Amino acid sequence: MSSKEGFQWTAATGLKSGLPCEGVKLPSKKLPASGRYDVIVIGAGFAGIIASRDLALRGHKVLLLEARDRIGGRAWTSTIDGFPYEIGAAWFHWNQPHMLSQVSRYGLQGELNFSFDLSGGVDKSNLHIEDMPQGEVDTEVSVDEQDSMYEKLGALYFNVDGEMGRKVMPYPALPFHNPEVLEYDNLTAFDRVEQIREDLTDLEANALKSYLLLLSGGTAENTGFLDLLHWWMLCNNQSGTFGSQADAYKLKHGTTTLVRRFLDDGLRSGNLEVLLSHPISSITDEKGQVSVSSNGDTYSAARVISTIPLNVLSTVDFSPPLSPAKKEALAHGHVGLHTKVHFDAMGTDLRTWSGYSYPGHGLLYAYGDETTSRGSTHVVAFGASTNVLEGENNVEKIQKALHHLRPDVNIERILFHDWVKDPYSRGSWCMFSKGFASQYLSTLQEPHGNVWFASADWADGWRGFIDGAIEQGAHVAQDVADSFSLT
Amino acid sequence: MSSKEGFQWTAATGLKSGLPCEGVKLPSKKLPASGRYDVIVIGAGFAGIIASRDLALRGHKVLLLEARDRIGGRAWTSTIDGFPYEIGAAWFHWNQPHMLSQVSRYGLQGELNFSFDLSGGVDKSNLHIEDMPQGEVDTEVSVDEQDSMYEKLGALYFNVDGEMGRKVMPYPALPFHNPEVLEYDNLTAFDRVEQIREDLTDLEANALKSYLLLLSGGTAENTGFLDLLHWWMLCNNQSGTFGSQADAYKLKHGTTTLVRRFLDDGLRSGNLEVLLSHPISSITDEKGQVSVSSNGDTYSAARVISTIPLNVLSTVDFSPPLSPAKKEALAHGHVGLHTKVHFDAMGTDLRTWSGYSYPGHGLLYAYGDETTSRGSTHVVAFGASTNVLEGENNVEKIQKALHHLRPDVNIERILFHDWVKDPYSRGSWCMFSKGFASQYLSTLQEPHGNVWFASADWADGWRGFIDGAIEQGAHVAQDVADSFSLT
Repeated sequence: MSSKEGFQWTAATGLKSGLPCEGVKLPSKKLPASGRYDVIVIGAGFAGIIASRDLALRGHKVLLLEARDRIGGRAWTSTIDGFPYEIGAAWFHWNQPHMLSQVSRYGLQGELNFSFDLSGGVDKSNLHIEDMPQGEVDTEVSVDEQDSMYEKLGALYFNVDGEMGRKVMPYPALPFHNPEVLEYDNLTAFDRVEQIREDLTDLEANALKSYLLLLSGGTAENTGFLDLLHWWMLCNNQSGTFGSQADAYKLKHGTTTLVRRFLDDGLRSGNLEVLLSHPISSITDEKGQVSVSSNGDTYSAARVISTIPLNVLSTVDFSPPLSPAKKEALAHGHVGLHTKVHFDAMGTDLRTWSGYSYPGHGLLYAYGDETTSRGSTHVVAFGASTNVLEGENNVEKIQKALHHLRPDVNIERILFHDWVKDPYSRGSWCMFSKGFASQYLSTLQEPHGNVWFASADWADGWRGFIDGAIEQGAHVAQDVADSFSLT
Repeated sequence: MSSKEGFQWTAATGLKSGLPCEGVKLPSKKLPASGRYDVIVIGAGFAGIIASRDLALRGHKVLLLEARDRIGGRAWTSTIDGFPYEIGAAWFHWNQPHMLSQVSRYGLQGELNFSFDLSGGVDKSNLHIEDMPQGEVDTEVSVDEQDSMYEKLGALYFNVDGEMGRKVMPYPALPFHNPEVLEYDNLTAFDRVEQIREDLTDLEANALKSYLLLLSGGTAENTGFLDLLHWWMLCNNQSGTFGSQADAYKLKHGTTTLVRRFLDDGLRSGNLEVLLSHPISSITDEKGQVSVSSNGDTYSAARVISTIPLNVLSTVDFSPPLSPAKKEALAHGHVGLHTKVHFDAMGTDLRTWSGYSYPGHGLLYAYGDETTSRGSTHVVAFGASTNVLEGENNVEKIQKALHHLRPDVNIERILFHDWVKDPYSRGSWCMFSKGFASQYLSTLQEPHGNVWFASADWADGWRGFIDGAIEQGAHVAQDVADSFSLT
């Protein structure tokens, strides 16, 4: 079973499109009263599947329409030779409340893999900063030393209030609880670097910038500071946990298995029908019924929940049209335009390795993340929109980008999906530009007639994470259920 | 509307039993097919109401039996003159994942009150240590100074691994994820004090012991160390947040309003019937049906979920009998035997005040927690089983206990409930003795035939908190739903 999405390269096969995925095979059940639905949910990512499950289990007839040939949205697992490659969202942390609640509900909270293995490998971290006054500077230190530098930089960068951010953003699950924090939405991420610039060496300033773009996926100009501060606070304003929460633990059986567990639970109700490969083109809310067009057919329900991502929603034709404020927000979109590439690297040297570069040759960061079932090191790498790898056209450029980070890597396999070109995501995880959150976050959360909107892209808490998708899916499902009780 | 539970004293009325509570009034709906249930849930605290809601919304016929004349279990609100007194569990923090998920689902995550007001009052903290070599020592410092001392003590006390506990308990939602932590279950809380004793002054050692018993509700002999370490890790091993998470934020509309919101959502399904004042005496699991006796009647269902607390469960007659291991666990019980007393203190002097004593005259700790609607300071105070206040027999002893902490308090009102004598709790929040968690935690979580057990008392994460009750209620509801699908 394979999705048409993604690419795989090995020396033996060359570059081929399509990747194995368990998320393409679903039980094909039609609802008994097919064609009559209470709710149509658009999008079978985590937000859409949580909302569908909750509403179907409550007895509402739900049709779930998914544009792709697989479930999972921006989180999906391709298992090859027994190793689960997370092509999109990958990491989990127990400080993610909605995710933890769900895995705990199903008793899965113990089934985790740990990304790091500190027992072997070269224990090196390489940093390549090209635009230094003296030309390119390359350093190599131990992983601990590099982490310590970044911890120091993080503590300096985020300590905007003398209390590591706790004063201005005490409650990161509701980031504007203290409205004083809104003043920080007037800064770009790089504006904030300038505020602490005199405490940084040239190398540190560039290393920090590299890291900030790695987090945002955006550019010097469009990366806002507030979302980065928000991440820091979500990670309990601890440098030590900032790294370990962003990229340390993964679900042993993959994100596809988890979202499938939620979906199967919903399907058992007998109230849920799922159609893959059903992209939608228009949503019409008329006379108390909402019609959704897909593949030339029209489906109707009393309510619609759209989980279409922020950067895609403007491609859908709404009648009546969305509010001017919502349209404006969609026209801006978010700036998270990451590249994510998986490498199998021969041997276990890179098991304790990380590499950073700035501006880089398409990859800002890579590190050894688990050992594959074949005994190779899984190296995961990220780039941002500053320097786009178009791997499907040029696999050599991908190889060069990793070799720029570390020349002596023997690349056995490459896996990637182009999330930016992907018509159903048009970006990776959500990161807002300067001023966007204060201006548009609540606008994006507002329903439009009988159409509700749920996406990690406008979550209050872990925005851009699976956790945020669950937050929004569960909340909107409750809102929609309440709307039925009140009418 | 009043519950028979609790006591109130004012100079004008003297001591009277019974307290106002919105949780006593429920819509009296019989299920259409009354008498035929899929699941009987015993106990309408947070665990039981979450489980009932989830199963009823999934279409199962649920009977919820509650022994008390009100819902909420060990969390309930008595609102007097517009001020919500939390007679039991009170505080909430966004690092409590199950609680946050639920309040977020209903859009209530912003409706919080903050306990502290640092803008006025005496800004004093009193410490009274009686058993010093030189006799009783009384100190008075600023609240900040006292907090700093306790922060220092916390960091010293919990730093068992040189990493503030992160090495031995990295994942506090699953505290035994690293089994190395089990060695700390061989220590009492006071054993651990001895390990750091040489770094402490006599005053600090006693101040620390006072605080540890305040947290546990137990004694020097029976308070285990592991549960305290667990709290510390749940609060992200930060002294600063340890206090702020345990007792800083409360739900604006009270815990009773919240649990009522969950219940009302479940009731809307038409699948849920609730009977208050229905204590149960026996549970018989026979021929695939479980019968529950209450008030001389017998109710039957395919499954039973008991949310009866750890210290009460041994009073119920099980047939077939519980396993020897489970019986042993119940015979031990937990050691959380707190006293909680609310005072209205005239004026706002105590708005920034805290008092500690050891061994004390029945109250180990008190502090100013919000201003009442009448402009008085709400002082909340706690004692442990070392020195039991039996307020219903001796209200003067309660007054003296507070005056020992601070003599110049003008007490206008006293509210309390005796959680230890209460036949349906026999204790306050759950705290385990030395060795209990490693020996009995998983035993307590195991089902017994067609009877499942859900309680905050054996939660994996925030054990003893509302969060833990939700964790267990949601997980067991899913387990029971799965058990129906598989048969």
